[in-house]
Amino acid sequence: MNDQGRSARPRVGVVGLGAMGLGMARSLRRAGFDVGVHDLRPEVAAAFAEEGGTAHASAGELAGAVDVLVGVVVNAAQVESVLFGTGDGTGGAAERLRPGSVYVMCSTADPAWSAELEKRLAERGVLYLDAPISGGAARAASGELTMMTSGAPIAYAVADPVLEAMSSTVYRLGGEAGIGSKVKIVNQLLAGVHIAAAAEAMALGIKAGVPAEALYEVITHSAGNSWMFENRMAHVLAGDYAPLSAVDIFVKDLGLVLDAARPEEFPLPLAATAHQMFLQASASGLGAEDDSAVIKIFPGIELPGQGPEQRSAQRPEPREV
Amino acid sequence: MNDQGRSARPRVGVVGLGAMGLGMARSLRRAGFDVGVHDLRPEVAAAFAEEGGTAHASAGELAGAVDVLVGVVVNAAQVESVLFGTGDGTGGAAERLRPGSVYVMCSTADPAWSAELEKRLAERGVLYLDAPISGGAARAASGELTMMTSGAPIAYAVADPVLEAMSSTVYRLGGEAGIGSKVKIVNQLLAGVHIAAAAEAMALGIKAGVPAEALYEVITHSAGNSWMFENRMAHVLAGDYAPLSAVDIFVKDLGLVLDAARPEEFPLPLAATAHQMFLQASASGLGAEDDSAVIKIFPGIELPGQGPEQRSAQRPEPREV
Repeated sequence: MNDQGRSARPRVGVVGLGAMGLGMARSLRRAGFDVGVHDLRPEVAAAFAEEGGTAHASAGELAGAVDVLVGVVVNAAQVESVLFGTGDGTGGAAERLRPGSVYVMCSTADPAWSAELEKRLAERGVLYLDAPISGGAARAASGELTMMTSGAPIAYAVADPVLEAMSSTVYRLGGEAGIGSKVKIVNQLLAGVHIAAAAEAMALGIKAGVPAEALYEVITHSAGNSWMFENRMAHVLAGDYAPLSAVDIFVKDLGLVLDAARPEEFPLPLAATAHQMFLQASASGLGAEDDSAVIKIFPGIELPGQGPEQRSAQRPEPREV
Repeated sequence: MNDQGRSARPRVGVVGLGAMGLGMARSLRRAGFDVGVHDLRPEVAAAFAEEGGTAHASAGELAGAVDVLVGVVVNAAQVESVLFGTGDGTGGAAERLRPGSVYVMCSTADPAWSAELEKRLAERGVLYLDAPISGGAARAASGELTMMTSGAPIAYAVADPVLEAMSSTVYRLGGEAGIGSKVKIVNQLLAGVHIAAAAEAMALGIKAGVPAEALYEVITHSAGNSWMFENRMAHVLAGDYAPLSAVDIFVKDLGLVLDAARPEEFPLPLAATAHQMFLQASASGLGAEDDSAVIKIFPGIELPGQGPEQRSAQRPEPREV
């Protein structure tokens, strides 16, 4: 591959067709890209192929066919598996990615690990973008994600059209891989604390006898509001704990936040407290419910839509937001 | 006084001419009310009188001249002093308020105390509205406060034109005094936790080497945003800790939140943690700085605008928000 030979529209692959990855793959097709995909569930990749994409049997096979590989898996362990193989003989994508191609790392992961990954891929001549995403499944589907990215200019030069096709906003935070992940970690700290705080506040109001709808109306128009209060407490008002993002996602993400700060010996009192609240929810059997179900750790209150006989929530597969 | 004799425009008094009360008194004058005022600092009341209002030497004297007395003092203890006297012989407003007049209680206070105050005033035939305010000094000045009110319909019937002149939104939360204060308590829980969380998150990002301005830009456009993050972290970016609302206000308000929940034996893990953070800031000598100065409890980071020689912030008198 050389610069003259490269078309303005790189060949692109998406590995991981959860709610986020599937929406992103569709956004790329809608923008005119040929999109190859791989998922551990072959039927999901096959269904996408019926829409017009190309299904690949392995991440390695997909990697050999693209200029930009977008990884939309849950965590660092899954990225390791995608890139370096699972030990089951299928190999990994890293050895099949051609020099000058780019791995776009969209997972929420430890910033130090992400910075190191850039170096491991550089040894093979593969470029890297640290590119965690935010915005939820609906925005993934509409190509309106926010991406928090950092990496080398040469990696952007290849992947930029791909980033732009998936996102309404691409933050370019610097030349070092890891900065994107640092900002995502800070965002997850706030998101997790705000969900737990929203639950604590709503629980206190309900305990005190304030009608939940009135409380929601006032708070969402006052200085106590947060993006998460407005979004998640609507689930509580509806008594609907079907997971858009599950309690266990914040058990994981606030764990990541704390892990990222510990080597620096940096105190995070609120993140630690919120993490304990999500752990308590998970230990109580609520791990697969919507993260707003953290409100159920508060005893002695009657939540909207939860009569004396506990309503059993619909529970589709948890998705990351 | 009888209903026929009552003009549509009640005579109104404001006691407590801090940043909030002064703005509210001016909004009332702008709306065409004759406004009497009292403040413990006679020169402040006199200055307002020069604008066209009437200064009174005591809360009792003011109370005798009005149909609606709006109390904009800091806490329950000051309300007690206004209404029932300080024991220095000047007496209180309660004994001078005429039957059928209304005391509008705008302080942030314990909801149970507020509910009890309604009964104590009712013994004298004085009506009561539980009416905490939110919105800050600028909105007080422009007549665009949010009021979180509850109380008897007959009290609203007298005070409604006064409430409307001061506010862009008057939430009417029910017939019982105390509900307004409960909602304000919930709002203060969230506001306090969000300021402390914003500080914790920004501190972590700065510690990790993320440029503070970039972090602010991303977070304010992401799911981790809150009203308080957006508002208060702008002070941190500017390195300006001149108090719009001081650290010690949240030492007080989160203390009130915890006090209100304790008789119910209701756990508030995040409010308790945030309270400790504000206490640590206050104990470190930051009590009179802007509440965003809670970020200074995080060691080993260089904050914007705070070079090796610590910038000494302008410190006007603390004001409630």
